[in-house]
Amino acid sequence: MTKYRDLNVPLRTIMTPGPVEVDPRVLRAMATPILGQFDPAFTNIMNETMEMLRDVFQTDNRWAFPVDGTSRAGIEAVLCSIIEPGDKVLVPIYGRFGYLLTEICQRYGAEVTTMEVPWGEVFDPEDVINKIHEVSPKIVAIVHAETSTSCMQPLKEIGEACRNADVLLVVDAVASLGGVDLKVDELKLDAVIGGTQKCLSVPSGLAPITYNNRIEEVINKRKSIELGLRTSQSESSNNRIISNYFDLAQLQDYWSPVRLNHHTEATSMQYALREGLRIILEEGLENRFARHKLNERALVAGIKAMGLEIFGDEKHKLPVVTAIEIPAGIDGEEIRSMMLEDFEVEIASSFGPLQGKIWRIGTMGYSSRKKNILHVLAALEATLIRKGFNVNKGESLQVALNVYDEHKKRNIEMVEAN
Amino acid sequence: MTKYRDLNVPLRTIMTPGPVEVDPRVLRAMATPILGQFDPAFTNIMNETMEMLRDVFQTDNRWAFPVDGTSRAGIEAVLCSIIEPGDKVLVPIYGRFGYLLTEICQRYGAEVTTMEVPWGEVFDPEDVINKIHEVSPKIVAIVHAETSTSCMQPLKEIGEACRNADVLLVVDAVASLGGVDLKVDELKLDAVIGGTQKCLSVPSGLAPITYNNRIEEVINKRKSIELGLRTSQSESSNNRIISNYFDLAQLQDYWSPVRLNHHTEATSMQYALREGLRIILEEGLENRFARHKLNERALVAGIKAMGLEIFGDEKHKLPVVTAIEIPAGIDGEEIRSMMLEDFEVEIASSFGPLQGKIWRIGTMGYSSRKKNILHVLAALEATLIRKGFNVNKGESLQVALNVYDEHKKRNIEMVEAN
Repeated sequence: MTKYRDLNVPLRTIMTPGPVEVDPRVLRAMATPILGQFDPAFTNIMNETMEMLRDVFQTDNRWAFPVDGTSRAGIEAVLCSIIEPGDKVLVPIYGRFGYLLTEICQRYGAEVTTMEVPWGEVFDPEDVINKIHEVSPKIVAIVHAETSTSCMQPLKEIGEACRNADVLLVVDAVASLGGVDLKVDELKLDAVIGGTQKCLSVPSGLAPITYNNRIEEVINKRKSIELGLRTSQSESSNNRIISNYFDLAQLQDYWSPVRLNHHTEATSMQYALREGLRIILEEGLENRFARHKLNERALVAGIKAMGLEIFGDEKHKLPVVTAIEIPAGIDGEEIRSMMLEDFEVEIASSFGPLQGKIWRIGTMGYSSRKKNILHVLAALEATLIRKGFNVNKGESLQVALNVYDEHKKRNIEMVEAN
Repeated sequence: MTKYRDLNVPLRTIMTPGPVEVDPRVLRAMATPILGQFDPAFTNIMNETMEMLRDVFQTDNRWAFPVDGTSRAGIEAVLCSIIEPGDKVLVPIYGRFGYLLTEICQRYGAEVTTMEVPWGEVFDPEDVINKIHEVSPKIVAIVHAETSTSCMQPLKEIGEACRNADVLLVVDAVASLGGVDLKVDELKLDAVIGGTQKCLSVPSGLAPITYNNRIEEVINKRKSIELGLRTSQSESSNNRIISNYFDLAQLQDYWSPVRLNHHTEATSMQYALREGLRIILEEGLENRFARHKLNERALVAGIKAMGLEIFGDEKHKLPVVTAIEIPAGIDGEEIRSMMLEDFEVEIASSFGPLQGKIWRIGTMGYSSRKKNILHVLAALEATLIRKGFNVNKGESLQVALNVYDEHKKRNIEMVEAN
C-alpha cells in the first residue's frame, strides 16, 4: 500500500472564467474504455468531432479539429505554423491575452507591432483598420473575448478590412466559443482558436481550432513529412515549421483520411470533447447563447443591487465573464478565500494592472445555471457583510429572482401569443 | 436533438505498443468533478503527482511533472528548452523514434550528428562513447525502448561517459517507464521523458518528464517571465526558449509554490495520472517489472510454439513489446484486420523498413494480463489457420499455460521454503 489516499475532491461551485464545472455527461463519457488510435471505431469518433466542431464554429472550413494541449497550445499551433521569421504581425492589445499573442509571435521571430487601449476598453475598429493600412502586416492576431477585463472586441469591420487587404486574421476565441455568438465565416475570420475548459464545459487539455484555405495555403507551403516516415528526400521543406508537435501541416494529415502517424490522440479527452459538443448541439447554439445572457443579466442585476459596481465598458461587456470593482477598504483575496472555504464557491481575481482591483465571476457553460448564480450572489453578500462592508442587505437575490421570473413570464406570454 | 448518438464503443483487447487498455480505476478517477487550477485541493493533487512521479522515475530530482500534451510534447519540451541554434547534438538511431529525436533537434536549430545500426539491433555502448569523444556534443539524445523494433538500448556505460564528458543525456523512455526497470539517477540520465498511454496505463494526453539540476541550470539561464505577467523589463532573456507552451522555465514556476500562471492544467488527466501512479506504487515497481516479464515469457513461448519467429536481437529485446516476423506469403494487414474484426483484439504493424515485415504485440500496463496473452495467442493462431498458414495446431496455448503453471509452482515452493 502507499500513503496516497483515494481521490476524494470537494464538490465546488466554480464561477471563474475557467476552468468551469464539467457537465456530468461529459465526465461519464471520459470513464469509457479506450480504443486504439487507428481503430475504425475511434477514427469515426474523430470524424464526428470534426463535424460537430464545424457547427459550433459556424464554419464550412474543412479543417476544424482539436490540438492536444491546453488552449494556448492551439494558439501556438496556429501562429507558429504561419509565422516565418521577419513576418509582420499586428496585435491590438486590450488585456492580458493580447500580451500572450504578442509573446508567442515574437518567440517565433515575427516583427510585432502592438497597439493598446486601457484595460476595460475595446478598440474602435476604425483605429485597428487604420493601423492595418499603416503597418501592412501579414497577420493580425487579436483576442475576441478578454477574460482578464471582461471585454469583447467587435470583429465585423476588422474581418472585412483584413480580407480586403489580404491580411490573415487570427482570433483567440478561447473564452467565447460555445457561449457567445461568433460566426467564423460570416465575420471573415481566417483562423480561430477555442478552449474546452470554458464555455464548452469540457476539462482543460484540448484546444479546438479551425482555419480556412487562406491559412491552409500558407501551411501547405511549409509542409514536410516526418523523418522516419519519409519515402523521398523531397518531402522536406526549407521553410519548415519550427515545432514538430504544433506542425499543422502534419496534424492535418493525421486528421484526414491519410491518417499519417503523428502523436497518439488523447482518447479520453476526445470522448469528452465529442460529448461536450453533442450537448451544445442538442441545446442549440441560439438557446445556449440566450441562456448565457439570461444568467449574466441576473448576476449583473444582483451585483448592482448589492451596491457594487461593474468594471469596464458595459457596452462591450463579455456576457460570460463579469468584472466587479473591489470596494475601497476591502481585501479582495480575503473575500475570495472566505467564499471558497465557507461556501465552496470559487471566483477569480485578475492580472497586471487589475490585480487587487477587480473580482471576476465566470458564467460559462455548465456553470452558467440559475442555482449557481443565486449561490454566488448569496455567498458574496454574506461574506461582504461578515467582513464589515455595508451592502444593501437582502436585495441582491430578490433582484436576481425577478430577472428569472420576468424571463419566465415573457416566455409564457410568447407561447400563448402563438 | 442531433444526429450524433450516445458514445458507444466496442470493448477491445488492446495489445499494441500503445495506447493500451486503461485500468478501470483510472477511468473512474476521470469521472470525478473538476476543481479550479489554483484551488488548494487541486494544487495538493499536483504536488502528490510530482512525488509519485519521482518514485516511478526512481529519482531524487526536484523536477518531475507532466507536460500537457502527448508523449512527444514532453520530448519537444525538454529538447527545445535546452537546445540553442548551433548546439551540437548526437543522436544514435536504432528505429523510428531516433528519427523523431533527430527531427525535433534539427527543427530547433541544432547541428545534429546521427549514427545508425540496422533496425532490430542496438548500439554497442563503446561505439556511442567513441562518437561522443569524436563529436563533443552538448547533448546526447537517445531512445531507451524502441517500440518500432522492440529493442532496448543499455544505458549504463553511456550515462557514465556523458557525465564524465559533461554532456547532457536526454532519454526517451516513453515506452518503458513503469514497465521496465529504469533507474534514472543511478544510470546518470539528465532528463527522461515518459508516456502515459503505455506502461502507466493512463490515457494519452500527458507526458511525464524529469530532469536534474544540470538541465535546470541550462533552462534557468534562458528564463523569461511572460509578457503581461512581467513586473520589470529585466525579466526577459535574450536566448529565450522559442516555444511558450513548452518553456520549461515557465512550467517549473507553474509547478512550484510560485504557481505563476501559465496554461490551465488538464484537471481530469491529472486525476488519471495520479490514480495510475498510485496503482503502480501499490503493486510495487519490482512486482510490476516481474509481471511484465512473466507475460512476455508466456507470449514469446506461445509465439514460438506456433512456429513463428521473433524479430530482432533477443538479447536486447524490450520486454513490453514483442516483434514477430510475418511469414512469407502472409499479408500481415489481412491478419490484423481479421483479428480486430472477429476477435476484437488489436495488434500493431510497424514503420519504415519494417512495414509489412513484422507484427508488434504490446504487453504494457493493464494490457499485460494472463487473460490477454491467452486471448491474443488464440486469436492469432485461429486467424493464421483460417488464412491457410500451417501452424503447429493447439500447441501455443499449452506452452503459454505451462509458463504460468511453472511460475505459480516456483512461487509456492519459494513460500514453503521460507
